[in-house]
Amino acid sequence: VSAPPSSERRYVVLAERLAAQIAEGVYNPGDRMPSVRELATRLGVSASTVKEAYGLLLDRRVVESRPQAGYFVRRPAKLPAPPPMSAPPVRPIAVSTGDIAMAVVHASAEPGVVAFGSAVPCDDFDGTRRVHELLAQKAREWGARGGAYQAPPGYLPLREQLARRALDAGCALGPDEIVVTSGCQEALVLCLRAVAAAGDTVAVESPTYYGTLHAIRALGLRALEIPTHPETGISLEALEMALDEWPVKACVLTPNAMNPLGAVMPDERKATLVELLARHDVPLVEDDIYGDLTYAPSRPKAVKAWDADGRVLLCSSVSKTIAPGLRIGWAAPGRYLAEVKHLKLVTSMATATLPQVAVAAFLANGYERHLRTARGAYRQRRDQLLELVAEHFPPATRVTRPAGGFVAWLELPRQQDSVELYRAALDAGVSVAPGPLFSARERYRNFIRLNYAQAWNGRTLAALATLGRLVRERSV
Amino acid sequence: VSAPPSSERRYVVLAERLAAQIAEGVYNPGDRMPSVRELATRLGVSASTVKEAYGLLLDRRVVESRPQAGYFVRRPAKLPAPPPMSAPPVRPIAVSTGDIAMAVVHASAEPGVVAFGSAVPCDDFDGTRRVHELLAQKAREWGARGGAYQAPPGYLPLREQLARRALDAGCALGPDEIVVTSGCQEALVLCLRAVAAAGDTVAVESPTYYGTLHAIRALGLRALEIPTHPETGISLEALEMALDEWPVKACVLTPNAMNPLGAVMPDERKATLVELLARHDVPLVEDDIYGDLTYAPSRPKAVKAWDADGRVLLCSSVSKTIAPGLRIGWAAPGRYLAEVKHLKLVTSMATATLPQVAVAAFLANGYERHLRTARGAYRQRRDQLLELVAEHFPPATRVTRPAGGFVAWLELPRQQDSVELYRAALDAGVSVAPGPLFSARERYRNFIRLNYAQAWNGRTLAALATLGRLVRERSV
Repeated sequence: VSAPPSSERRYVVLAERLAAQIAEGVYNPGDRMPSVRELATRLGVSASTVKEAYGLLLDRRVVESRPQAGYFVRRPAKLPAPPPMSAPPVRPIAVSTGDIAMAVVHASAEPGVVAFGSAVPCDDFDGTRRVHELLAQKAREWGARGGAYQAPPGYLPLREQLARRALDAGCALGPDEIVVTSGCQEALVLCLRAVAAAGDTVAVESPTYYGTLHAIRALGLRALEIPTHPETGISLEALEMALDEWPVKACVLTPNAMNPLGAVMPDERKATLVELLARHDVPLVEDDIYGDLTYAPSRPKAVKAWDADGRVLLCSSVSKTIAPGLRIGWAAPGRYLAEVKHLKLVTSMATATLPQVAVAAFLANGYERHLRTARGAYRQRRDQLLELVAEHFPPATRVTRPAGGFVAWLELPRQQDSVELYRAALDAGVSVAPGPLFSARERYRNFIRLNYAQAWNGRTLAALATLGRLVRERSV
Repeated sequence: VSAPPSSERRYVVLAERLAAQIAEGVYNPGDRMPSVRELATRLGVSASTVKEAYGLLLDRRVVESRPQAGYFVRRPAKLPAPPPMSAPPVRPIAVSTGDIAMAVVHASAEPGVVAFGSAVPCDDFDGTRRVHELLAQKAREWGARGGAYQAPPGYLPLREQLARRALDAGCALGPDEIVVTSGCQEALVLCLRAVAAAGDTVAVESPTYYGTLHAIRALGLRALEIPTHPETGISLEALEMALDEWPVKACVLTPNAMNPLGAVMPDERKATLVELLARHDVPLVEDDIYGDLTYAPSRPKAVKAWDADGRVLLCSSVSKTIAPGLRIGWAAPGRYLAEVKHLKLVTSMATATLPQVAVAAFLANGYERHLRTARGAYRQRRDQLLELVAEHFPPATRVTRPAGGFVAWLELPRQQDSVELYRAALDAGVSVAPGPLFSARERYRNFIRLNYAQAWNGRTLAALATLGRLVRERSV
């Protein structure tokens, strides 16, 4: 990366220094900050540099400006508490979640709508542009050759890159243990089909990603919803009781930055989970789609890292990290490899060739840097979301503190109906994902999931304020 | 299209004139043709123009050259007869077709192998190159926007083009009646899932495309194989008896240029088929993947053209017409539209965005011309294949006369084992698709399917001669 022009760098450095001083208590909440002129003189920089630095701190909600008075250190908002442990029904049930998911997906793609309802990533990173430049370049280079199938398991250089990256998740995988799929959804469905058949019971987190619930329903399976903690994910105690009591054929879990909670299961619980599954001889379909997007300095391991006997079927994609429209996902299905490879062939034959080639090239060069940018941005946008919810929503609102990804789970006051809220918000040009989507039997009626992937700007700030107003109006 | 340079045009015109004279009997089989010098003088053209014209007639196998003697009209080879009507088992059975399909797909992709075994199109047409130029261009133009989902039913301009083209197949469809899929295989699987559930019986042609049989097996369905005629396709009489006798939940048929026979069901039989299905209240999953590649001057109608009550689920793709690696297919599922759209969402979420954009642009401009080229080339290559089989294979060999597409079905002498032949041929660098792939219970042991999409050149001619030799060695 080339260094930014020195004038740009200077105001960023200054903003960071001021932010650090505030964090260290040099300036305290409510304190007036030095004036522009004062700082410019003291530091020997131009007034415009200081103004730009304060502008950045305003954007980051570190300071606030009071007309005619200057800049002041913001008082930290009293952040909303996270929701408590979930308490889903304690028996396997057919999934009744209905057609609203499709409506949410479509509403989120409407050009006039601010899409808090979908779980699509920000598309305004250099990396997203870069991968499409690579796609154009590879399409030119490959020409008609790009029209040939890459039959299962898929394009070898892509699988080689994925195998290399799996090490970061603690998994020693060879390229031949990986099957390329058309996104993570196809990976989940193929793996589910490999381990369970119509009528079987599958244990899931509650709340959980509606795509998983829909796949379970479409395959004629029954869902057994297990309680989750908003920070550590699925309750292993509840899971163990469920495995003792019910004929659970498989688990489908998202241990890293699960959707919608953003919870990351601690490593020692992952090890315990694998022991538990081995004791009950139950396979795990592990959805690791957000694994590369957690905020902690080192990437959390996948549960598959502890998998000694091939019972963990790891699934992921680049839909959250790079772009969903590429439709590049994969599975590392352990002992079910041959079955998943065969199911891929008979279900969709192959995954589009050139997107595989472009993603392989980006993983080899550019992906790591892109991830650093994306993780930093999402973390900052999460912090802002928490403050914005405190500012605009009723005081009884609770919200998770996602440890990765870019969705948060809000518990609204009890009388709220999130499906009605969804409709009212859509009329106002804002989409949300209503809570019942995330449960097999349409629970979580007073919950919503919000996407905070996009930058907080005039448009998104106004949309969140609108949403808060709608909730407040419905709380009186 | 700009006119070719006049010198090029002149030898093509001359070759066509000579070919017409041969067809009209001015020159008869075995006759010596006028010498180069004689013709050049008589017509007032250069000797090289005449030589080039004879070269073209040699390529087309219209004349042959005898050293020191000149050009002679070829005696038409006695072409092999087509195989008789098929006689599959007369009860529904679980599909046992095994793992060899994956091996065939992979073997056909090996760089050193002449791939007669796969059903991939020729990749050496201008149109195939053009669509990849469009992909590069659209990736550049769209940039990061190309990374967004095109949620089901898919990219609207593509569905608009598909709706427009459906008119050629006799179907009045709106864009909103079409769902974009990841290739025809996904379309078939989603439509099958919409109309049948595990344990149900599905009627299919015999022989039939192994991808259909694998999908049936993977979904836990039972296949009821119906006899076919090598020129007119499925026997409606046999189908009617089967519908009377068995609880058939759906049919999956390929009425246009079916794979592997190349048969096209005549229009009046299509109308009768729809009446028959209505009488028994059975839906039809119609695989029309070869519909645009039939050789007759006007494209045959789809069965869906007669569908008055939405019971026909039309499936197709660009995998045979443009390139399989794009993974662009679609379904027009009639009354099952909502279910197929939902199944697409929960099975693979969406189809890759930029391939949809590129195919939409190519359908709007370039596809028609490309089709004319491809149909002409495939028809000519079929004619050559028939002669080559007569020349290289044992006299008892029978072969279909495909009316479209680019695969032919060969019945070898009874003692031949096509799976053994497949292995021996692969050792010699040639892949074939053994007959048992095309039956639910591995019948057609002495049949093979051959792909004739590639141009006949030194390499492919030698490969076919090798194959003929291997069959002859096994026939003694």
